[in-house]
Amino acid sequence: MPEKPVDTLEGWYCLHLFWDLDWAAWQTCPEPDRIKLVQGFKAYLTAETKVEDQGQGSHYLFNVSGHKADLGLMILRATLDELNEVETKIAKLPFNQYLTKTHSFVSITEVGTYTGKPKTDRGWAYVNAHLKPALPEKPYICFYPMSKLRIPGANWYTLTYEQRQQFMHDHGAVGRKYAGKIWQFITGAIGLDDDEWGVTLFADTPLMFKKIITEMRYYEASSVYGEFPYFIIGTYLNDDKLDHLLLDEMAGDDE
Amino acid sequence: MPEKPVDTLEGWYCLHLFWDLDWAAWQTCPEPDRIKLVQGFKAYLTAETKVEDQGQGSHYLFNVSGHKADLGLMILRATLDELNEVETKIAKLPFNQYLTKTHSFVSITEVGTYTGKPKTDRGWAYVNAHLKPALPEKPYICFYPMSKLRIPGANWYTLTYEQRQQFMHDHGAVGRKYAGKIWQFITGAIGLDDDEWGVTLFADTPLMFKKIITEMRYYEASSVYGEFPYFIIGTYLNDDKLDHLLLDEMAGDDE
Amino acid sequence: MPEKPVDTLEGWYCLHLFWDLDWAAWQTCPEPDRIKLVQGFKAYLTAETKVEDQGQGSHYLFNVSGHKADLGLMILRATLDELNEVETKIAKLPFNQYLTKTHSFVSITEVGTYTGKPKTDRGWAYVNAHLKPALPEKPYICFYPMSKLRIPGANWYTLTYEQRQQFMHDHGAVGRKYAGKIWQFITGAIGLDDDEWGVTLFADTPLMFKKIITEMRYYEASSVYGEFPYFIIGTYLNDDKLDHLLLDEMAGDDE
Amino acid sequence: MPEKPVDTLEGWYCLHLFWDLDWAAWQTCPEPDRIKLVQGFKAYLTAETKVEDQGQGSHYLFNVSGHKADLGLMILRATLDELNEVETKIAKLPFNQYLTKTHSFVSITEVGTYTGKPKTDRGWAYVNAHLKPALPEKPYICFYPMSKLRIPGANWYTLTYEQRQQFMHDHGAVGRKYAGKIWQFITGAIGLDDDEWGVTLFADTPLMFKKIITEMRYYEASSVYGEFPYFIIGTYLNDDKLDHLLLDEMAGDDE
Amino acid sequence: MPEKPVDTLEGWYCLHLFWDLDWAAWQTCPEPDRIKLVQGFKAYLTAETKVEDQGQGSHYLFNVSGHKADLGLMILRATLDELNEVETKIAKLPFNQYLTKTHSFVSITEVGTYTGKPKTDRGWAYVNAHLKPALPEKPYICFYPMSKLRIPGANWYTLTYEQRQQFMHDHGAVGRKYAGKIWQFITGAIGLDDDEWGVTLFADTPLMFKKIITEMRYYEASSVYGEFPYFIIGTYLNDDKLDHLLLDEMAGDDE
Repeated sequence: MPEKPVDTLEGWYCLHLFWDLDWAAWQTCPEPDRIKLVQGFKAYLTAETKVEDQGQGSHYLFNVSGHKADLGLMILRATLDELNEVETKIAKLPFNQYLTKTHSFVSITEVGTYTGKPKTDRGWAYVNAHLKPALPEKPYICFYPMSKLRIPGANWYTLTYEQRQQFMHDHGAVGRKYAGKIWQFITGAIGLDDDEWGVTLFADTPLMFKKIITEMRYYEASSVYGEFPYFIIGTYLNDDKLDHLLLDEMAGDDE
Repeated sequence: MPEKPVDTLEGWYCLHLFWDLDWAAWQTCPEPDRIKLVQGFKAYLTAETKVEDQGQGSHYLFNVSGHKADLGLMILRATLDELNEVETKIAKLPFNQYLTKTHSFVSITEVGTYTGKPKTDRGWAYVNAHLKPALPEKPYICFYPMSKLRIPGANWYTLTYEQRQQFMHDHGAVGRKYAGKIWQFITGAIGLDDDEWGVTLFADTPLMFKKIITEMRYYEASSVYGEFPYFIIGTYLNDDKLDHLLLDEMAGDDE
Repeated sequence: MPEKPVDTLEGWYCLHLFWDLDWAAWQTCPEPDRIKLVQGFKAYLTAETKVEDQGQGSHYLFNVSGHKADLGLMILRATLDELNEVETKIAKLPFNQYLTKTHSFVSITEVGTYTGKPKTDRGWAYVNAHLKPALPEKPYICFYPMSKLRIPGANWYTLTYEQRQQFMHDHGAVGRKYAGKIWQFITGAIGLDDDEWGVTLFADTPLMFKKIITEMRYYEASSVYGEFPYFIIGTYLNDDKLDHLLLDEMAGDDE
Repeated sequence: MPEKPVDTLEGWYCLHLFWDLDWAAWQTCPEPDRIKLVQGFKAYLTAETKVEDQGQGSHYLFNVSGHKADLGLMILRATLDELNEVETKIAKLPFNQYLTKTHSFVSITEVGTYTGKPKTDRGWAYVNAHLKPALPEKPYICFYPMSKLRIPGANWYTLTYEQRQQFMHDHGAVGRKYAGKIWQFITGAIGLDDDEWGVTLFADTPLMFKKIITEMRYYEASSVYGEFPYFIIGTYLNDDKLDHLLLDEMAGDDE
Repeated sequence: MPEKPVDTLEGWYCLHLFWDLDWAAWQTCPEPDRIKLVQGFKAYLTAETKVEDQGQGSHYLFNVSGHKADLGLMILRATLDELNEVETKIAKLPFNQYLTKTHSFVSITEVGTYTGKPKTDRGWAYVNAHLKPALPEKPYICFYPMSKLRIPGANWYTLTYEQRQQFMHDHGAVGRKYAGKIWQFITGAIGLDDDEWGVTLFADTPLMFKKIITEMRYYEASSVYGEFPYFIIGTYLNDDKLDHLLLDEMAGDDE
């Protein structure tokens, strides 16, 4: 007989999108055109920000460190259709002529209830802040997918509810230690993408990502049952930083 | 000695096809040409729909969320030759100048008989609706392949028939709970593609995919024996939505 | 001490070659040029057929279903040098301007002797028909590589000769049940390619591939010890079908 | 309950960057342009060297052996933002027109404290030389990521602190044997990149890399618990060697 | 405590390089240019042959069967710098305009001493012929990497020295059976490339590769502990065969 699944609460759909910029082509794009293309991209983002201002979603644009991508966008909306529209609108931007999709992750915000469902307004406010979050404008983001192992000798899904509850409780206790240092958002991806969950962390310093994930790695939920195929690290891009990334000090500008 | 295989009933051959659209090139295609290319694609689809109207097959076109593809097509026909012809005809469409194959899955509709073969007309009607299905025009599709584990300690194929029968019965009971919420089609792919089965789900909301697959994951057929290498999620494209995806608000149209 | 290997008989070298066709470029190739290029390809195949007519080899050209390739060629010759020459000659054909290599498999026909070496002329005739085969012009082909597992708890190569002999006998009995429905050719690839064997099946209907491989999957030789990384399915291309695939109803022909 | 994690000390952020050079395009670039492009690249490196001269970071440029890349750069800075800026500045160099990113690794210098934290000035000097290192201008570099296994029967993270301490002590003893032959820098990547650590070795002869890593492989920390997905080997490029690599004896120069 | 490593003797550094030829572009290259490009490539090889004639290295050029590559070069030199120079010089050849790197393997010749170090001149001559080999001009080459398994239940590196010695002795006995049929060269790659060893075999017939590797596969050193991720098979290219491969019967030559 199967073990009892945990009840989950879900909120907004979530899309992590990643692109490479074709720097070689971008360099040869005349400066006025480059400026216009970036303006178009920023105008698009501004439109999305209006949705966010109305509490109907949230997004966070970032510069990915290393070769995995140049740009990353995490975006949340009430429906998958809105996220499809985001993806398509960016694909139709003139700026997209210089972008190549490198990766993505489709999921939905999720709060588990191993510790019970909220019983107070404050509890629900906390839960809702994770189901329909305003993503914090922290300088650093860390995104990683996670699945639970299902092999002989280490199968999360054949543990009893109580065992899983205990493991998650221990794990969660680590998270609470990092309150004010790490802002964590869990999105469920079973049936939506290849891995079972997405974890997105925000912090004031990337070192915190290393600290919290290292500490958690010694807890059974991670050490025995956690699979973490990759980690992507990024730095927040506001309009000024986006301009700096895309427009400043380009090759040939002063030639 | 080997354990007894389960008898299976098969119906139509099935092809899942996935393409990326070269948005950068598509943007630079003059609008009248774009319109003509999409018309050609829709004319092709209309021809296929006539086959469907005669009960000789079925298909479902969708927009894939995330980077895995832009367009997906699930199509069923009585013979593999007809599916080859579908694939080739699309390859020969002028619109295909802007498409790149990203993935596919070759299979055949399958109904297992662990619960016995149908004994009533109603039973056969149910089975036939899965062997020669009219795919529902639901707004969301979820496709994922599945194989059964064959490692020491978790080998589906060395279980007795009765054990497998029990596991499948439990699993199937979850499926029945989602009647009216999830429309499920199983296609067998042993000897036809890399994974052993394809599972295609349709729903009115993508959250249902997460709910049913999560619930099933705690049952032995999934938790111990199921392998699920990837999941692809899509949104139905009727003619209007296809026009919107491919033709509306393109870069440069108003420049 | 090692277990006793099985003696094997070998015949012709075998090359499975797979290509994608650049349909976008092919569409823009003027029709007279397309016709000439296909004629050149067919002339090449005719030359190879003459070798086959002299009993010096065999080949089978097919259209691959799905995204893995467009064209596949299985070809057998007495020496690897002849196969290298086949590969190079195709590479030098003008038609190759539109092809991209996607995959290949290098092997040599093999007959194992777990059941003993042939003792009669009829027995040798049977063996030779597998070592130096005339590939049947059946409409469907299924190619898949196979290796035997070598992990703790499931290691084919530490089984005794007698155990392997028994497992192969059981396995072979399934094959004999499909006489007249499945034509099977085993090629050995240890030391020649990444997997240990190639299995090539021919049939009058693709469903038979599913039936035989499913039935075999419950036997220990497959269930416990078999690894099957991928399956490729194709449909026979005679000259007419090749013309149809490459020349009929091309985009733009009637514009 | 979880086992106690080891405390770690961290210093500078570290980025390993790898590029392929498009030799075909580079050959056709007119020699005066090539010279100018290389001068631009060297001017950039000189600017970074000034940072290094002020003790604010360090870098090491190398030629990668084999197909994995042509150029490699290991660079350390106090903040991730500075490394992002390095990455972007190189992307904006005209020379980058000929480069393609092939790989990268994001990490931070790390010193573990299984043997306790330093108690003397000399101890701290040693630690600081690894946290804020001046990379040695040795002729050869070896970079490889490492993770610790987490499977039933070999799970580093469920070992007691004392067990891990012992294994690391034994492992470290090997390292000390190679003092004066191998210069080793450990960077932590948990939460920053896909693997848990990066190991970068420098030596006067590549054979030393083989010697030390082979010797360590027999110690439990490696033999039972170490995962090493790939190794990249490179040769130091000073300005003269960079000129030789990029400018000497180019095809067509004397035609 | 760790088990005792085996002492190894090392000689020349070794680079296996693999390239694809862009046949489509090569076809459209005017014949006089093609001839000139091949002459340039052969002139380069002649220069390397002079090094070989002075006993300072060795190399073997071959045509790879199947899709993995078109050309392969195995080359040995006393230093890694010389191999880097080889790689760069080929990259700078005009002929390289038509080549794409597909794979490589960096290693160093190695002789293990499980059977003791040589005690006679003849013994040392044998060892030196493997450490600083003149590669035989045999018609066929087989290259494959090998690593030793390190999982619970099958960990080569936690075996005692005596166990490994016994396994290697048994394994080596097979090799000796093939004297005069197989010429084997072992290169160590720990710390230099992703796998632990490279094995390069030469033979008068490719069937011998299958025979020896199959026989060895039943010995514990292979059956239980050996990992063999891929095999590459090639055919020797002397100047005439290189001309034939690259220049004879090219498309368009007689049009």
